[in-house]
Amino acid sequence: MIETAFANRKVLITGGAGFIGSNLAARLVGLGARVTVLDNLLSGCGGNLFNLEPIQDRIRIKIMDLRDDRGLLPLVEGQDYLFNLAGRSSHMDSMRDPYGDLDANCRAHLAILEACRIGNPDLRIVFASTRQLYGKPDSLPVSEQHALRPIDINGIHKLAGEWYHTLYHELYGIHSCTLRLTNTYGPRMRVKDARQTFLGLWIRLVTQNKPFEVWGGEQLRDFTYVDDAVDAFLLAAACDAAKGQIYNLGGDSVISLKDLAETLITHHKGGNYTICAFPDDRKAIDIGDYYSDFGAIHRDLGWTPKVGLVDGLMQTMDYFRQHLQQYE
Amino acid sequence: MIETAFANRKVLITGGAGFIGSNLAARLVGLGARVTVLDNLLSGCGGNLFNLEPIQDRIRIKIMDLRDDRGLLPLVEGQDYLFNLAGRSSHMDSMRDPYGDLDANCRAHLAILEACRIGNPDLRIVFASTRQLYGKPDSLPVSEQHALRPIDINGIHKLAGEWYHTLYHELYGIHSCTLRLTNTYGPRMRVKDARQTFLGLWIRLVTQNKPFEVWGGEQLRDFTYVDDAVDAFLLAAACDAAKGQIYNLGGDSVISLKDLAETLITHHKGGNYTICAFPDDRKAIDIGDYYSDFGAIHRDLGWTPKVGLVDGLMQTMDYFRQHLQQYE
Repeated sequence: MIETAFANRKVLITGGAGFIGSNLAARLVGLGARVTVLDNLLSGCGGNLFNLEPIQDRIRIKIMDLRDDRGLLPLVEGQDYLFNLAGRSSHMDSMRDPYGDLDANCRAHLAILEACRIGNPDLRIVFASTRQLYGKPDSLPVSEQHALRPIDINGIHKLAGEWYHTLYHELYGIHSCTLRLTNTYGPRMRVKDARQTFLGLWIRLVTQNKPFEVWGGEQLRDFTYVDDAVDAFLLAAACDAAKGQIYNLGGDSVISLKDLAETLITHHKGGNYTICAFPDDRKAIDIGDYYSDFGAIHRDLGWTPKVGLVDGLMQTMDYFRQHLQQYE
Repeated sequence: MIETAFANRKVLITGGAGFIGSNLAARLVGLGARVTVLDNLLSGCGGNLFNLEPIQDRIRIKIMDLRDDRGLLPLVEGQDYLFNLAGRSSHMDSMRDPYGDLDANCRAHLAILEACRIGNPDLRIVFASTRQLYGKPDSLPVSEQHALRPIDINGIHKLAGEWYHTLYHELYGIHSCTLRLTNTYGPRMRVKDARQTFLGLWIRLVTQNKPFEVWGGEQLRDFTYVDDAVDAFLLAAACDAAKGQIYNLGGDSVISLKDLAETLITHHKGGNYTICAFPDDRKAIDIGDYYSDFGAIHRDLGWTPKVGLVDGLMQTMDYFRQHLQQYE
């Protein structure tokens, strides 16, 4: 289905110069879609035009802020699909600048949904949400029925953003599907700092042969390779069954942070790390162990992660060995 | 405890010219508190300076918008208690103007909480939330453990506002307690329209001897008389056990809308209503039956509704027979 659903179709990707957005754009170009990428390229978010370099002549790139709601309407009109990956994802930024997080994760999504409602209610939307919404899990693995318990300002706003999408489906009949992502990694991820995931920072330091810090170490996590995440976005857009649904993504295996660190240095053939106590300002938002039950998207859409953690990490490190200077 | 906790203490009430805020202000003045009322008096919200007329010489009134975050800091400093009743509560307004609702129910609460965090983290906050957050109940009565499922933009933002308060307790240790109000009624309620509750509109029309409309009629609801709601706010502020808690309020009885309409016209000794189908634009946000389990606040703080529905309605109608011209 993915092979044919996007040929010659018009696709808008918000946050499209970011990590997952740019990988999605590249895949869609390969499938023959007519892609427009929208990004604000704000520092602190994931946008980086280098991510789009391989496809820059085959897509349209608009640098603008989603909160410019008058500018959004003409961009939304005529699109068949909208992949909404805009927003901020940093815990700490949201605590330092709650208003900025409110704008980026609430006002911006209201603006894009209002533009869709007014100008193009027949398009299909897939929204990138996050497992952060579950907070510290009551039990594992975590399914979509788990209580929602955001543990920081960013989580509160991400949840509001998700609910807007569900509500615009329920009240206005717009096809929208939400994917709750767990730690996603791969080429083009943010490695400058830990704003997307600590793993980005680790990968940069390892490929630079510098030591990195592991906070705690015993916590369990699951990881989705970006190509698998892209598959999920395409299925959620193409499949009728996804309309109005919320799905967890997950990984092919569960690993402790310490074992993940070991895996990285083993496959880089060198490197070292230190185990540190959790910094005080992060303790309150530490969630302990997390891994997802992604049975629902498997049953409904046939999605399953295909790329194993070691393969994924090796491809990611290869990418950054080659292109690291573009991401510092 | 309520009798002594507020004597000579400094109290700030946001939304204090509104229905519940003004009743709370009057009670606090009676208890010897030094009350500052803050209200933006925006149309569409509940603020009405007439509500404060009986106590206007004994309180300080500041007309300002909560989003003026620099203005908030000096107001918050030195207060012992903050009753945060600011915000919009209209379903329909939030769908027509989602950005305005975002400002009033998210940005404003962030601003007040940031002011508290920076300028006065030792004060005690009670936040007015709503049973709207539960959406259409899965089972009755609805306890605080019920799933959260906002059914409109206003509900999404109210939930974010509530979570901010819980988060500022968890991360910064601020004493905050949230009360999830059900339909609250009494003197000084908004009767101009159904923005606070349909019951306000009914009461106005009955006291004007005009017919009113009952949408549906079989839905069950519970109602809290405003003096009982005020008791709950005072207990939540005064009791240590309330710190970080979220409590439902409820009513002394459960009644269908049709029986409520009958009760109104019986005690007004006249009046008439028509049963109507739910208007199309409200069907999607109709929640069916609702009534609360308020066992938690009863157990923890000893709160229970004391004013029966008939007594409460009669006192409310008496008030509006006398003062209706101030509320049209």
